[in-house]
Amino acid sequence: MARADDPGIEALIELMARLPGLGPRSARRAVLALLGRRGQLMAPLAQAMAHVALTAKDCRVCGNISTEELCPICADPARANGEVCVVEDVADLWAMERANAFQGRYHVLGGTLSALDGVGPVELGIPRLVRRVGEEGLTEVILALAATVDGQTTAHYLADALAETPAQITSLAQGVPVGGELDYLDDGTIGAALRARRRF
Amino acid sequence: MARADDPGIEALIELMARLPGLGPRSARRAVLALLGRRGQLMAPLAQAMAHVALTAKDCRVCGNISTEELCPICADPARANGEVCVVEDVADLWAMERANAFQGRYHVLGGTLSALDGVGPVELGIPRLVRRVGEEGLTEVILALAATVDGQTTAHYLADALAETPAQITSLAQGVPVGGELDYLDDGTIGAALRARRRF
Ligand SMILES: [Zn+2]
Ligand SMILES: [Zn+2]
Repeated sequence: MARADDPGIEALIELMARLPGLGPRSARRAVLALLGRRGQLMAPLAQAMAHVALTAKDCRVCGNISTEELCPICADPARANGEVCVVEDVADLWAMERANAFQGRYHVLGGTLSALDGVGPVELGIPRLVRRVGEEGLTEVILALAATVDGQTTAHYLADALAETPAQITSLAQGVPVGGELDYLDDGTIGAALRARRRF
Repeated sequence: MARADDPGIEALIELMARLPGLGPRSARRAVLALLGRRGQLMAPLAQAMAHVALTAKDCRVCGNISTEELCPICADPARANGEVCVVEDVADLWAMERANAFQGRYHVLGGTLSALDGVGPVELGIPRLVRRVGEEGLTEVILALAATVDGQTTAHYLADALAETPAQITSLAQGVPVGGELDYLDDGTIGAALRARRRF
């Protein structure tokens, strides 16, 4: 017996199931809930998603993702306190923001140095970060990279690249577990690591 | 310190968090994954969702939800075997289809009888079901309602309403736990209950 599924609904379930945390069964359940609230939830969600898919871009200053040319953090004059926090990706930036412990701006690397994958300093925007020190009068660059081999290799490269600038280089200190990724840490740990930061 | 969130992205996270099985944290993680795959996943998902939100409707024959006027099950001549299975909602219809044990068609009640909520036979399409027996030459109506008080009250009402028709009335037998909802049963249990169905 052939399954008699609606092609449009099945296509939607199949796409939903690709989201992290949603398997085929929970994707089906989510779509059922959407089908029951087509006007109040499904249509607005589709519209919000289309809007973000169309307008989201990398902030040209820091690499954060936002629907504006300049992300809200770079656009906020109150965040120009001379501090820039370097993170691997947007997930880590969001984790820092959730911790609510940092009032400066960011540099999102978008990865770590990897000769094998052809990821060099230019791909990570490191020359652009070095220029920002002079242009924005940065006094401190905080390296908030994971305590992994790749993260620490990249941190050392950054420290060298920034050595000739007037900015002080610091790094997150206690609290970041070895091999641990920032995005999985609780907010308190991130805040403590930030407050106890040390010269790199 | 004010949080510096992108309004478009935050609106999307807030809507995603309303889906069953996704809390605020997993909604954020899902949106991050979408942001990282804007072209390959986010845009197609938004489009599929908008299409379904716009075109999904109740099948005018059986009450199943589909993007066509006539759902794929009612449109498939191979499913016209004289059997109709009565279920409470679309989730139960999907559960029956997953069990892959039934080759007939459906009648989706959309609820159970409830004087308190003003849900009567007409709201559940019961006169329409009675007409289908003659029009489609149905030989059997299988009542696949939950073994709850509301489900069984509705089942008895259905048996009375269909008593004067030539169709045999049966109901799912063993395997449906008392108080259990169909949608949460495993496929094997549903199949066994269907095969062991008895006269109502
Ligand atoms: Zn920015
Ligand atoms: Zn139908």
